[in-house]
Amino acid sequence: MTTEPLLAVLDLLGTFVFGLNGALTALRATRLDIVGVVTLGMVTAMGGGIVRDVLIGDVPPATLRDWPYLALAASGGLLAFVLARWLDRWELPITVLDAVGLSVFAVIGASKAMAFGLGVWPSIILGTITGVGGGTIRDLMVGRVPSVLRSELYAIPALVASAITVAAVGLGVYGLPAALGAAAVCFLIRMVGVGFGLNAPGAGRVGGPESGNQEP
Amino acid sequence: MTTEPLLAVLDLLGTFVFGLNGALTALRATRLDIVGVVTLGMVTAMGGGIVRDVLIGDVPPATLRDWPYLALAASGGLLAFVLARWLDRWELPITVLDAVGLSVFAVIGASKAMAFGLGVWPSIILGTITGVGGGTIRDLMVGRVPSVLRSELYAIPALVASAITVAAVGLGVYGLPAALGAAAVCFLIRMVGVGFGLNAPGAGRVGGPESGNQEP
Amino acid sequence: MTTEPLLAVLDLLGTFVFGLNGALTALRATRLDIVGVVTLGMVTAMGGGIVRDVLIGDVPPATLRDWPYLALAASGGLLAFVLARWLDRWELPITVLDAVGLSVFAVIGASKAMAFGLGVWPSIILGTITGVGGGTIRDLMVGRVPSVLRSELYAIPALVASAITVAAVGLGVYGLPAALGAAAVCFLIRMVGVGFGLNAPGAGRVGGPESGNQEP
Repeated sequence: MTTEPLLAVLDLLGTFVFGLNGALTALRATRLDIVGVVTLGMVTAMGGGIVRDVLIGDVPPATLRDWPYLALAASGGLLAFVLARWLDRWELPITVLDAVGLSVFAVIGASKAMAFGLGVWPSIILGTITGVGGGTIRDLMVGRVPSVLRSELYAIPALVASAITVAAVGLGVYGLPAALGAAAVCFLIRMVGVGFGLNAPGAGRVGGPESGNQEP
Repeated sequence: MTTEPLLAVLDLLGTFVFGLNGALTALRATRLDIVGVVTLGMVTAMGGGIVRDVLIGDVPPATLRDWPYLALAASGGLLAFVLARWLDRWELPITVLDAVGLSVFAVIGASKAMAFGLGVWPSIILGTITGVGGGTIRDLMVGRVPSVLRSELYAIPALVASAITVAAVGLGVYGLPAALGAAAVCFLIRMVGVGFGLNAPGAGRVGGPESGNQEP
Repeated sequence: MTTEPLLAVLDLLGTFVFGLNGALTALRATRLDIVGVVTLGMVTAMGGGIVRDVLIGDVPPATLRDWPYLALAASGGLLAFVLARWLDRWELPITVLDAVGLSVFAVIGASKAMAFGLGVWPSIILGTITGVGGGTIRDLMVGRVPSVLRSELYAIPALVASAITVAAVGLGVYGLPAALGAAAVCFLIRMVGVGFGLNAPGAGRVGGPESGNQEP
């Protein structure tokens, strides 16, 4: 967990929302039982950070060491299972919070990779993976080509935030202002993408029951 | 490998049966050559333990260090390739032995995670992953939504056995009796599920050629 | 990176061609944006080595430490995105260079596993994974059953080259001649397979738009 309280709070918020949104997305794509829904919520919330931690050699991964991550990811998935129909009415706020999670995950992921001594480009890639990796694994597990490979405005903002973060660390000016600035840029690009329909609202999801197919 | 002889024997038996059953399941789901069948048998038998070992930082994974695992997993897959049609008549005993493997894998996985200093919940999750992870990866590789996400009575017994194991370790009473007790509970729940058709016999499999589809 | 200049050059060439060919293959299988194409090219080029390095405990993986790998893998993917239609005319040379990459990756992967103290069989498996792992992950990400599970003459030559490499290391005669010999055997088997149509030219790929389906 990051030592900066504000970032830590946003990181935990992101974990919960990724768990919730990831589970809802999985529910829309295929038939699942409660084990499946909660599992896929947790995979979405924790998958990106786990891949990053395995690749930089920080094992056990942070999300398996710090219980709040596990608890919030599981709670998000469980809530999605219980309230799936009701939550469908809250698509916009969930999309907004999901973008907050994406932004914070990318910034924290990129700065952690730099702190573990990785180079500029690997750190940018690992920051992006932290943001989009969980949803990618979730999509694979429900038999969909990961939406992040098809719609630019989910991976691109994470890539931009990671690049700003890496630049700030490299220039020795990384701190809370730089982290929030990088996250804000990611958030804004993502929101512009959502607002102008540059991809479907709630990107990473599909709209109806038919769209769970492999090849739309 | 565990130092307890009885557990070690059951662990090796489970590895062989997972290799056999995993390869049979893969054969039913899609067209494969001998490389594919043996690979998927080995993935089923060793995948869960490898994911666990990577996540707790015990690399190279135990199944790549101890040759009997590799040999038994490959033998199971090879036998499935050679005797596929004949083995179809032995579905029930294979299902029973598969449940033994599931039980032992979960108990060993959970106790190993505790031994490596992971917390209660992560250890329960890693025990479950040890039991169901290999079949999950196998399903992904043949283009199926993992059956463990759809049918409660494969993951749930592994989760229960992991929880009992973790509790026993936490209370300082873990040993052969506790391990066998936890495994027995898992085995019984799984057998009840199979017996009452709470999911298809030989869960994790599909019945006919059509059922290899992505979205049944 | 290997310290042997000729092997290092072939390794880098293989990385570029795997990035290019992997991205082309992904483009043929499904609809993707530029992020997806470059990502899948990089996954194809670097995935096998990353899995190997995670399993032997050499993290961060070599391809994330040495920038030329990352740059060449990304360049290959980018080139495929820009010149996809034009590159279709160059299928044979790309297939030949892809076989060079397969051969070198298998040899380097197997010798690295031996150097990290793994046993004979795990080293053979890890050499094979180094060669075919990236394409396998790429196929999973575009929703195809990995072609390596269906067509013997992509995995088998990598397996043979890995076995020769492991034997040479075990006998204490591993060096540039042995490495090139093992790679040459792999290359020849692969080329014989391509030439006699033992699998489709450009194995690991599918020919037309329909063939991106899950179950051909």
